[in-house]
Amino acid sequence: MADTDIMAPEAGKPTRRTRGTRRPARSAAHGHNPWLEVPYITRKVPTYDLLDEESLVRIEEAADTILAEIGIEFRDDPVTVEMFRKAGGTVTKLGDATWNIRFDRGLIRALCATAPPRFTQVARNRARSVEIGGDAMIFVPSYGSPFMLEPNGDRRYATLNDFQTLIKLAQSTPWLHHSGGTICEPTDIPVNKRHLDMVYSHVKYSDHAFLGSITAPERAADSIEMCRILFGSDVVDQNCVIMGNFNSTSPLVWDGVTTRGIRTYAEAGQGSIHLPFLLGGAVTPVTMAGSCAQSLAESMVGVALTQLTKPGAPAILAAFLSSLDLRSGSPTFGTPEPALGSLVMGQLARRINLPLRCSGNFSTSKLPDAQSMSQSVMSMMAAVQCGANFILHSAGYLDGLLSMSYEKFVLDSDLCGALHAYLKGLEVSDETLGLDALREGGPGAHMFGTQHTLRHYEHAYYDSALDDYRPWETWDEGGRGDAMSRATTRWQQTIASYEAPPLDDAIDEELLAFIAKRKESMEDAWH
Amino acid sequence: MADTDIMAPEAGKPTRRTRGTRRPARSAAHGHNPWLEVPYITRKVPTYDLLDEESLVRIEEAADTILAEIGIEFRDDPVTVEMFRKAGGTVTKLGDATWNIRFDRGLIRALCATAPPRFTQVARNRARSVEIGGDAMIFVPSYGSPFMLEPNGDRRYATLNDFQTLIKLAQSTPWLHHSGGTICEPTDIPVNKRHLDMVYSHVKYSDHAFLGSITAPERAADSIEMCRILFGSDVVDQNCVIMGNFNSTSPLVWDGVTTRGIRTYAEAGQGSIHLPFLLGGAVTPVTMAGSCAQSLAESMVGVALTQLTKPGAPAILAAFLSSLDLRSGSPTFGTPEPALGSLVMGQLARRINLPLRCSGNFSTSKLPDAQSMSQSVMSMMAAVQCGANFILHSAGYLDGLLSMSYEKFVLDSDLCGALHAYLKGLEVSDETLGLDALREGGPGAHMFGTQHTLRHYEHAYYDSALDDYRPWETWDEGGRGDAMSRATTRWQQTIASYEAPPLDDAIDEELLAFIAKRKESMEDAWH
Repeated sequence: MADTDIMAPEAGKPTRRTRGTRRPARSAAHGHNPWLEVPYITRKVPTYDLLDEESLVRIEEAADTILAEIGIEFRDDPVTVEMFRKAGGTVTKLGDATWNIRFDRGLIRALCATAPPRFTQVARNRARSVEIGGDAMIFVPSYGSPFMLEPNGDRRYATLNDFQTLIKLAQSTPWLHHSGGTICEPTDIPVNKRHLDMVYSHVKYSDHAFLGSITAPERAADSIEMCRILFGSDVVDQNCVIMGNFNSTSPLVWDGVTTRGIRTYAEAGQGSIHLPFLLGGAVTPVTMAGSCAQSLAESMVGVALTQLTKPGAPAILAAFLSSLDLRSGSPTFGTPEPALGSLVMGQLARRINLPLRCSGNFSTSKLPDAQSMSQSVMSMMAAVQCGANFILHSAGYLDGLLSMSYEKFVLDSDLCGALHAYLKGLEVSDETLGLDALREGGPGAHMFGTQHTLRHYEHAYYDSALDDYRPWETWDEGGRGDAMSRATTRWQQTIASYEAPPLDDAIDEELLAFIAKRKESMEDAWH
Repeated sequence: MADTDIMAPEAGKPTRRTRGTRRPARSAAHGHNPWLEVPYITRKVPTYDLLDEESLVRIEEAADTILAEIGIEFRDDPVTVEMFRKAGGTVTKLGDATWNIRFDRGLIRALCATAPPRFTQVARNRARSVEIGGDAMIFVPSYGSPFMLEPNGDRRYATLNDFQTLIKLAQSTPWLHHSGGTICEPTDIPVNKRHLDMVYSHVKYSDHAFLGSITAPERAADSIEMCRILFGSDVVDQNCVIMGNFNSTSPLVWDGVTTRGIRTYAEAGQGSIHLPFLLGGAVTPVTMAGSCAQSLAESMVGVALTQLTKPGAPAILAAFLSSLDLRSGSPTFGTPEPALGSLVMGQLARRINLPLRCSGNFSTSKLPDAQSMSQSVMSMMAAVQCGANFILHSAGYLDGLLSMSYEKFVLDSDLCGALHAYLKGLEVSDETLGLDALREGGPGAHMFGTQHTLRHYEHAYYDSALDDYRPWETWDEGGRGDAMSRATTRWQQTIASYEAPPLDDAIDEELLAFIAKRKESMEDAWH
């Protein structure tokens, strides 16, 4: 089935842009900034480079030392072990299905060299295909929370309905560029069948690119197979249309379910993300330089495995740095030290010439309150300033990633909008210097009505959909709402007016038939 | 009167450090990070340089064009006009007490050259004296709000009691380095006597450095005279012990009350801050490059006046960039475009080799909610990343600077603590690379108990006094508080345990006598 059958010829006219032009002028509605809407961001601000050459080399050398002297442990995947052995790794068998592999200095880095520095992930709406790498940057919803948090603090297990609602919110904002993967865990669906409903929901309720399953190699295969139905096999064979988001088992372990999943995606020429989830002081040194070295070492090994599987397969270096409340042992997120670490990971990724996934709107708060956004912005500024390309966890993150929140999702999305303005940078030209605005009235004259103001005011400043700009008196008369209550109104209105993007009926039926068949083939499993 | 009489010999042992060592170990109390406490920050992270040389030169040339072709309007201060005329300005009389002065390209910049790139403001507790300029950075409370905002949204006029309470909060946190000036307007005190109570309150309830009055030249003189009582005339004659925070009347006007105030401080060898308060699209071009050029032009003129008055007098270049809700005409704060402008102002200040005041914890929100901290961090990250030296508005700012909030004050202060950790940067050494932590247990082993963790955990991560790190269950059992409610508890507890720093009785009496005499000399004036 050819991809042109299902793709409306919308290239250059993505849904969001069309909506922007249908709306009345800026003066009528909040939160519309059509001039900032893009399928992916092209970063116009420089990266914020924290460390000098010498320090970066020391971190790279430490990563090499980890790989050469301590090694990586592999479990339950002799094929992967054999591939690394053939590539030059020194294998030591530790048990029945456990091996340690050490790598000569520079070997793993050399194996990463065939991975593309930049690639395209094709979306079913081609106008929403995204670039990953270089100066391209995309914001992607959060990933992996089992719970939903209500604004009153109630916490409950997430369901498929929550999963689909979050997809609809991501589809409806111009400030997220990708539908993500396990936006929350649909815990009402059996574990071994969950991936089918998740992939289908991404396809059905979004026309963005998305991530597939990684919890078992056969689920990865199902995810890719569903893409063959959606895109046609030719397209899948020649493009990256789906990716898997894989975690190492830090410190320094890659387990077999994961490495087999990585190989499944790579064999199909699909993309993968290689993430060490590093809780400082728990699974990585409590000092950030050590976390950076370990993160680089573990992530490069994942990338190297993709290249041994299929040279040129898209792969993303990744870093998730966090700190710990060493009083309680609880992880903490959105703190200053990991923000610095993220800046360094950006430098390291550029030196190895790989796309980077890094940081996001992290928070430990249980409510979408002042703490949640203070921590999120601290974390997210590092993500964008380090030049990360694939910014997972850009929307919805609360409770140390244990919970998603609809309110936080739209607050974060609005921040992502502000970051679209930030990442455009500051243009210096005769027109933006605007001396004519000053000349027109001269000293002491206000500029509301100058020709320069009239030419620029509609596009001068990002207009938030959620922030309250009103004078106190107007805000008081309007009921004194806070950001959380506005966020509740916002997400509920968005869902009420949501319309699914068109999907070819024949494809829809074929996907549903595939899912039914796969579900019939196995008993429900709940863990 | 010698300064040693009133200064306890505390150099090297500031109050805060002493308190840190008296406290039990980290495991017992939240929010104690004695290893981060300093009288002023020495920035260890690089500045985030947004623009290239060519763009910076264009902004500087635009500033020169403004000064050479449009000129600055001066009002009600013929002495200042005469000083600029003698220095080479081209004066055009516009009215009885109004003049336009144009300046040859480069003239104003050349006049700024004698201002010190870095200087010390002496505090009455010498251990709390601050450095201003270069890689030194201080956080200073907000300035100028007439109102106080309660957590329920009630807004009321601020009083002297509020003013003193805010001073006590600033005195009690290790994360603010200066007592500020008009932290709020004590509206229950007559306008013409307010400055006496304000300066006295700074002296009485804080041992930090502080700002004096700028609302009239004679009030500036009173402020300096009170410093002579406090420090002794010798100290005042030879040091910067007080500063005035002056605003131009943008666009492109310096009024006589202000220029006479600037001259009053400079004549006494005291410091001054030269701030264009630029509301985008209202009093400055709606495009940020133009705002930067205008900000530079107006601020340099203020600095130049100090140098004509007394070469070598301390002076601070300043920038306050904001945007506007062009639908309502309301100013907006904490938005992305002014954050970019702040980064540029940092570059411009370094090129002219002057200390910079820039940005702060800006917000338009009426509550200390998610919006307030999202905006604040966006703004504040630019302040610290641009390398600003004197960061006014670091604590308390809500409602577009119309209102102060006790809750926001402590939330902001806690963020300033996190920024102390951020500004220390990321150290790369064998010890911080911590390979021994990874070697000790090897792959798969947790690191809670490694020797490396034990050596570093107490100082590894900033410990917030306000953020909730607990698991949801514990937070739920504890009553589900939000950041705002924790902030209320925090500031009330701080005030309950506040102790005034010691002040010599004779000085106290002399200050009170001076105030009484000055108050008796004039009728109350309320505007």
